[in-house]
Amino acid sequence: MAMMEITVVPLGTASPSLSDYVAEAIRLLEQAGVEYRLCPMGTTIVGEVDDLLQLARRMHEQPFLQGALRVATTIKIDDRRDKPLTMEGKIRAVRDKLHQ
Amino acid sequence: MAMMEITVVPLGTASPSLSDYVAEAIRLLEQAGVEYRLCPMGTTIVGEVDDLLQLARRMHEQPFLQGALRVATTIKIDDRRDKPLTMEGKIRAVRDKLHQ
Amino acid sequence: MAMMEITVVPLGTASPSLSDYVAEAIRLLEQAGVEYRLCPMGTTIVGEVDDLLQLARRMHEQPFLQGALRVATTIKIDDRRDKPLTMEGKIRAVRDKLHQ
Amino acid sequence: MAMMEITVVPLGTASPSLSDYVAEAIRLLEQAGVEYRLCPMGTTIVGEVDDLLQLARRMHEQPFLQGALRVATTIKIDDRRDKPLTMEGKIRAVRDKLHQ
Repeated sequence: MAMMEITVVPLGTASPSLSDYVAEAIRLLEQAGVEYRLCPMGTTIVGEVDDLLQLARRMHEQPFLQGALRVATTIKIDDRRDKPLTMEGKIRAVRDKLHQ
Repeated sequence: MAMMEITVVPLGTASPSLSDYVAEAIRLLEQAGVEYRLCPMGTTIVGEVDDLLQLARRMHEQPFLQGALRVATTIKIDDRRDKPLTMEGKIRAVRDKLHQ
Repeated sequence: MAMMEITVVPLGTASPSLSDYVAEAIRLLEQAGVEYRLCPMGTTIVGEVDDLLQLARRMHEQPFLQGALRVATTIKIDDRRDKPLTMEGKIRAVRDKLHQ
Repeated sequence: MAMMEITVVPLGTASPSLSDYVAEAIRLLEQAGVEYRLCPMGTTIVGEVDDLLQLARRMHEQPFLQGALRVATTIKIDDRRDKPLTMEGKIRAVRDKLHQ
């Protein structure tokens, strides 16, 4: 299992508000039934790398279906194979060390 | 007020575990008393752009103080000047549209 | 045709030198016969989005084959559908405006 | 000396063409007399970390001066202190290993 953060940004939309586009991209995650977390600067998803990239492919396409002419997508993958990687686990590891 | 997501990663540490480094970088935010949120793939901070970049500068330096020889830092800034930008507001705007 | 910039970074490699890993990931692009450009902070590739993400998948896997336990991959996709997007064209458009 | 890649993207600009904005941000680098390289997906600059972040601050501000209401800036810093880091050197290290 790996972790992906993705940000999908349509460019050249008349308005600087992008939540209509972001919501439709997130809807794909709801429909796919995957574990995800909305963060202020991107969405984090946990899964197999192949599945994560397939989801990224569909999320990247979504703004075009809503009329966008250009889309900038940023993907960060953290893939660790010596121990399980979970969203809660990563945050807890930092919090524990911060407060010890 | 703008929003910054930052990830500070030391390279060439013998172990793939990085939470010792991340925790010390986060400690700087605690000491500075700024509003931040730990996300699984980075830390989000809200503030004036000048202040955000000063914090980024100090967080980037932190792993060197712990012995790292190379540090890769990734910063994303979202700066919107037509309306206030808050972490809760950004997430709520997406959630509201998702469920309407 | 879209454009992708990719950076594949193994973590916990003991040495801060990563060019052994980067070279093997680039070798996959040579073997695939795609158009790519080495830039100081990442590699840019032009192609169909599906093909780009398949290449990203293989490049991301490469450091694990060389013994890495954790890999951080960053992907930026720029996909513009109202006009052709080329590496030379993007740079020339900026240069022309800079010097006019 | 460290290396920074920066991408400054105005959002909500009506047109998907951004080179007018990118050119003005690059002009700041020309005026500052720093070593930079235009890459298809971003601009790479070499310098002291403090200077790099000051340049980033000014480049991030530039689209607002041209009327943008929202700007998304992405910065990647690679800072290596065990040996000198140059743009040519990084690319040559990979090329040499690729062809040996």
